[in-house]
Amino acid sequence: MVYYYPQSLTNLIEELTKLPGIGPKTAQRLAFHLLNTTEKDAVGLARAIMTARQKTRHCSVCANLTEDDPCPICRDANRDPGLLCVVEQPRDLFAMEKTREFKGKYHVLHGAISPMDGVGPEQLTVNTLLSRLQEGRVKEVIVATNPNVEGEATALYLSRLLKPKGIKVTRIAHGLPVGGDLEYVDEITLAKAYEGRREI
Amino acid sequence: MVYYYPQSLTNLIEELTKLPGIGPKTAQRLAFHLLNTTEKDAVGLARAIMTARQKTRHCSVCANLTEDDPCPICRDANRDPGLLCVVEQPRDLFAMEKTREFKGKYHVLHGAISPMDGVGPEQLTVNTLLSRLQEGRVKEVIVATNPNVEGEATALYLSRLLKPKGIKVTRIAHGLPVGGDLEYVDEITLAKAYEGRREI
Repeated sequence: MVYYYPQSLTNLIEELTKLPGIGPKTAQRLAFHLLNTTEKDAVGLARAIMTARQKTRHCSVCANLTEDDPCPICRDANRDPGLLCVVEQPRDLFAMEKTREFKGKYHVLHGAISPMDGVGPEQLTVNTLLSRLQEGRVKEVIVATNPNVEGEATALYLSRLLKPKGIKVTRIAHGLPVGGDLEYVDEITLAKAYEGRREI
Repeated sequence: MVYYYPQSLTNLIEELTKLPGIGPKTAQRLAFHLLNTTEKDAVGLARAIMTARQKTRHCSVCANLTEDDPCPICRDANRDPGLLCVVEQPRDLFAMEKTREFKGKYHVLHGAISPMDGVGPEQLTVNTLLSRLQEGRVKEVIVATNPNVEGEATALYLSRLLKPKGIKVTRIAHGLPVGGDLEYVDEITLAKAYEGRREI
């Protein structure tokens, strides 16, 4: 009879394989690390997963990831309520924040329009965006979706939807490498892109 | 004021960065995945970490990872108690098992001799190995440590320790990997393969 890993180790490897970019060999290496590391680090990771899921939610105003609702950005009275930056994901919002250039508020779509993947405006937070805009305080919507096909389609869709309502819609400049990912762009490039925005 | 991730998310990213081979960007990607995935998968991973740590221990006989002590291999009466394969890590034991060739028992050292890293025989399970050998049932010790400096040093140390006790000590063969290409093999491996040639 041939022996394999104990059941609980096999199970841990399987769970790790579900993570994006983690193949069976990496999962095995991580599993052995988690068994050999200190109790503090292993329990720390398990607890951090649970805690992050329990504590974070989507802000009811801007749909950003937050522990408090509304999120600190929506509650910040020093931010310009006339400027609204629309991003695909929370990580894009935080990338934008790191530039220290933008002083307005945000709206997180949680995706981009992609008919191939069955994602239309109704799968995104477009309805909440429209309600926010109906309050009439937003003068300019800056579309900071990714510079790829889906992001451009979303930008075009939003400009066609919002322009008839008399709202200025701008797109961050193509200083970004086309086909790239907003998340991975360095702060200076992203800041330049924000600076050079043009009306759609 | 500039906003960053919520505290619980920052904490999750930090915990993930402690894993081997996981940098800040990968940790961020994994953290967002763990927040967006199903409750079942996220909780599943957290639980799997805790369960694997609680249930697995080192076998008191061979030091293999196991849920039961002694481990299933040590308890298996169909395995030849005269053959003992010495490996560095539990993952090496399972790699050996997958070959379905070896029908003896194992001993896991949990490392290899490496004076640079302060690892000597007393940091390994060499003492338990000696006690096992004193029972007198083992006829041959097969040293299957890694074919690198530390693994070779460990193999040499074990052969010098055990040969005077009248135990046959063998080393797994060095040579060309099956399916490999002679042209791409390094000189030392090829020299070893030549040295270890056998009549067809």
